[in-house]
This record gives sequence, structure tokens and C-alpha cells, in this order.
Amino acid sequence: MSEFVDSQSAREYLLGLQERIVAKFVQLDGRPFVRDVWEKPRGTPLDGGGLTRMCENGNLLERGGVGFSHVKGAQLPPSASAGRPELAGRGFEAMGVSLVFHPRNPYVPTVHMNVRFFVARAPNNTPSPLGEGAGGEGEPDLAANRRTSERSKDVWWFGGGMDLTPYYGFEEDARHFHATCKSALQPFGADLYPRFKKWCDEYFFLKHRNEPRGVGGIFFDDFNALGFERSFEMLRAVGDAFLEAYVPIVERRWNHPFGERERDFQAYRRGRYVEFNLVYDRGTLFGLQSGGRTESILMSLPPVVKWRYDWHPAPGTPEARLYSDFLRPRDWA
Amino acid sequence: MSEFVDSQSAREYLLGLQERIVAKFVQLDGRPFVRDVWEKPRGTPLDGGGLTRMCENGNLLERGGVGFSHVKGAQLPPSASAGRPELAGRGFEAMGVSLVFHPRNPYVPTVHMNVRFFVARAPNNTPSPLGEGAGGEGEPDLAANRRTSERSKDVWWFGGGMDLTPYYGFEEDARHFHATCKSALQPFGADLYPRFKKWCDEYFFLKHRNEPRGVGGIFFDDFNALGFERSFEMLRAVGDAFLEAYVPIVERRWNHPFGERERDFQAYRRGRYVEFNLVYDRGTLFGLQSGGRTESILMSLPPVVKWRYDWHPAPGTPEARLYSDFLRPRDWA
Repeated sequence: MSEFVDSQSAREYLLGLQERIVAKFVQLDGRPFVRDVWEKPRGTPLDGGGLTRMCENGNLLERGGVGFSHVKGAQLPPSASAGRPELAGRGFEAMGVSLVFHPRNPYVPTVHMNVRFFVARAPNNTPSPLGEGAGGEGEPDLAANRRTSERSKDVWWFGGGMDLTPYYGFEEDARHFHATCKSALQPFGADLYPRFKKWCDEYFFLKHRNEPRGVGGIFFDDFNALGFERSFEMLRAVGDAFLEAYVPIVERRWNHPFGERERDFQAYRRGRYVEFNLVYDRGTLFGLQSGGRTESILMSLPPVVKWRYDWHPAPGTPEARLYSDFLRPRDWA
Repeated sequence: MSEFVDSQSAREYLLGLQERIVAKFVQLDGRPFVRDVWEKPRGTPLDGGGLTRMCENGNLLERGGVGFSHVKGAQLPPSASAGRPELAGRGFEAMGVSLVFHPRNPYVPTVHMNVRFFVARAPNNTPSPLGEGAGGEGEPDLAANRRTSERSKDVWWFGGGMDLTPYYGFEEDARHFHATCKSALQPFGADLYPRFKKWCDEYFFLKHRNEPRGVGGIFFDDFNALGFERSFEMLRAVGDAFLEAYVPIVERRWNHPFGERERDFQAYRRGRYVEFNLVYDRGTLFGLQSGGRTESILMSLPPVVKWRYDWHPAPGTPEARLYSDFLRPRDWA
């Protein structure tokens, strides 16, 4: 078995992806992103750190962040292993790139993308220090991922996806976003897009509102079905597809004129984004529970948000069309 | 034993309290509160309903709600019985008044008050329909609250409290608020205020910020130590103390001049309120988990909120004084 868990190459890929995405948005926006290197947050049981790139008050992005983090911890928090309760409490290593962009123009949708890599250490397998070239450290073979032997071996998996949250919907945009996701996954099996699309619809759903967060996209977790090398290729295909999925939408919409009414609706709808991220999002809860860096985790929250009691858009308005035509699971690709 | 669980009188007290508080704020603000009667939310396992009173865009209150609710359910959600895991899953009856006021003027603090009454039904004790005069239905005596016999009996308790969240702190206000809470509890035992004050400091704490929500007040739960009649009197003393604790602060501060800077800081600090309520607050999570009415639960959220990356007030400013002088546990009374 020549395949092994190469966490060093995952780290390099993720840092490069972050750099590429930031460079593109600096070029589009004209405003530089702040660059914050952080290390082990004080008073937490985490080892590791990250690099946060953040844009506020940009021309295009009212608030947008792209975060890289790579942490090790002694105990996998429950939120990270919801689908695998048998792994909770194990030592773990987690790295990923996560981004949320909140554009200023309400005709440009908010977008989220995340690609991540997890290793849950075998019990009694003390984690080695970070930055020593993790590739040579674990080297569990594929068998480590068979449930039968998981109890005594390292277990690794990939997760991630991307999803789109419009304020004023355009079918062309939703179709383009989904079609790009579908093409990216196609080489790895025709079954992946439909599975991940459905998973996304189910995951980004606000139960207390009986409402999807947006028009969806793809979401996956616990993915190791293709072996390390091929699963990692799949992850890269998703990360690499982000700019292609989102930038054309930005370019089409960000000169669309808007006024107070549209800004107000955007601020109201952003409240749903806050509700989802703080009440349901596993990544956010994982970060907060594991003692992650709060400002980096909560850079997903919008810059200005409004709550209004029992508000509903008037029938026949563009705002009502968001609910009737976009905020329901549809076959977009 | 002449004492019994009189849920009808609790209901009457709570509705009267809501009415008194709303009347006072209508008088102060000049703007009427919306009055929404709601029944069993669609598609949930809850029976019951409530009365929501809401003020938006008032002169004093930018957004403020006072909610009454009275629900029965087949399964007590985990968030309601965190301190009593043995009760989770039981049939339950819950009623309460909960309020959050977000004033427009940043010199007037946000306030929260809640008084509630819970009954966890004995296993196999089918709840009777609401509105039949619950006082004659349960009648468990005090022994029901002894842990030794809890397994086969109804268990009741009171909970609640009030806490103050200033944007620009005034020691006079914090002292008045705490002193009023202390006086209200005094007749029921000198130990209550110190215990409930500490409980409040511990409860309204944002772990991920290492920050208290505000200057605290009092918080209690699972309270039945004085028997039903006397515990209920204590609850009424807390509810009745609210106007006395808060109105003098409002009257002192709401003509204080303010500008963009103060509004901006208020919007930023309101973000902490959202974070607390959606990530930690048991009442909010109980409501959302038990299928409560979302708009009534989330009326606690502020009207306009801002998030800003890694922001800190400049040393020596009034904004910095909030952190250094008020957002730390202090002996206020």
C-alpha cells in the first residue's frame, strides 16, 4: 500500500488556495486584505495556529474573511465527530481553509466555502509537535479507515463544500454555481454531486425557520472513500472550483444599482446567516468548543445585521420571490 | 400539607405582570406595543400558546418585547433540565414571562428579565389539556420535590432573574439595579441574593470571549426550596421588582445626548448579546428545541447589530472603561 496520510501536502495545498483566493479578491476589490498570523490561543488546550486574511469596508466586500487554521488537540470535541461518536475524546489534528464573503451590494450573494482535513489519533497515540512534517508521523494505511480496525488506528477524513446565499435571486447564478460544483466532482464519480448537493440542502437548513439558508451547493464530511490520494484530489477539485463558481456571479451583479430598500432586506436576511452559524454550524461550534480563535471563527458573521419582528415580504415583490423561487430545494444543475 | 402546585395562579400572576410592565413602557415611550396572541406553533409537538407584546422603533425602545408563554410538551428538552438530567424526556408544563428591552439611546442599558414555572410530570402521568385550571390537576405535595421520591412524582420548580447590559457604564445604575434585586430577595433569606448574584455572573458569561455579558443581576433555576407558596412569593418579588430596578435608570439616562460613535459602539456590543443568546442561552435553546414560536423567542435579538474584526477600544476612552470597570464581576450591592 503506497498511499499514506500526507498532512504536509494538505497544509501546502490549503495555504496556496487561501493565497490564490485572496489575490483574486484583492484584484477585484482594490482593497488589501489584513494578514493576521495567530498562534495557540491563550488559555486553551489547543496547539497550533493559523493565518487569517480579512477585508472590511471594501468596495466589493463589506466584510469577508479567508481563514487557514491547523490545530492539534488532546480531545476531539463532539461537534467534530457528530457522525462518528466513537471518535469523540480522541487526540486530533485538523486543518482547513474556510471563507465567507459578505458583499456590500445586495444583488451579489453571500458565499461560503470550506475544505478541511481531519485526523483522529488512535487511542494512546500521543500527537507529535506540529510543523515537523506530519507526513512521516502517522502514515496509517487505508485499512485505518475500515470501521473494523478503527479502534486502534488513526482515522482520517476530508470535509468541505461551498454554498450560495442570495438576497435577490437569479436563476442563472444558482445554475452556474451548482453546475461548477457538479463538474468539479464529476471525475470522482457521478454519484458525488447528487449526494453532496442533497447533504448541503439538509445541512444548511434553519429548522426553527423551516427555511434553507440559501440556494445550497455541495457539502460533505467524513470522506475517505477513495483512499487518501484520490480523496485529497477530490478535495482539491472542490477548493479549486471556488473562484470559477463565484467570480462570474460577482462580475455579473456587483454594478447592479441598489438603494435603502435592498440594503435593508439584505441586513434582515443576514440575520438568518447569524442564526444558522451560531445555532447550528458544526464548524463554528467546533471552533468555539475546542478553544479556537474567536475572531477568526466569527469572521463569518455579517458586518451589519437587522432583526425585525414577524416581518414578511409583500406578495409579488422581489423580496417575496426570494422565498418562493429560491429558498426551497431545487434541481439547479 | 395544604400547599399544592397552583399553576392557574402562576398563570394569572404572569399575565398581570406582563400587562403592568407593558403599560409602564407604553406610558414612558408613547408608542403602543403590538399585541400578538399565538397558539401551538404548526408542526411542533407542543401544546399551548402565548401572548407576545412587542415595540419596535419606539422613542425609548428601538426594539423591546415582553412575552408570555404557557406550553405543555411530551418530552422535556435537555436544555430545560441541564441541572437535572434525570428529568429529561418527561412530559412537562412550562410558563413564563420573558423580556428584553433594547433602548435606542446607547446610554440606556439593555435589560433582560425572566420569571418562569416548570412542572416535569411523573413518568406515565399523561398531561391533561391546557386551560382546565391546572391547579386542580397535579396537586403534588412538597414531598414531590424530595429527590428520593422524584422518580414517581411530578416535580416543579421556579426560575428566573434579571440582568443589566450597559454600553456606557454608570456605577450608580449598576448599584441601584443590584440593590433592588437584593431588597426583593431579602425577606426570603439573606443567602439568596449572594447565591443568585454569583449564579448570574456565571451564567451570563461568554466563554469564547472570556467576557461577562454585562454587569449581571440575579439568576436562579430549579428553585423549590421554600415550598410552593413561599417559593412562588419569592418569584413574584423578583417579577415585581423589575420596574423599580430598571425604570429609574431609564429616566436618568435616556435624554443623554449621543452621536454616531456611541451608536456604533452600541451596535458592536449588541453583537455580544446575539452571540450569548444563540450560543449559550438555555431559554432560547429550550424554545427553539422544543418547537416554540421562533419570532417570540428571537424577539430578544437587537434591531441593528454590527460585527467588526478584532476590534478593541482605544485605551482611556469611555468604551474602554466599559471593559475595565464594568465587564468584570464586582460587588455592586
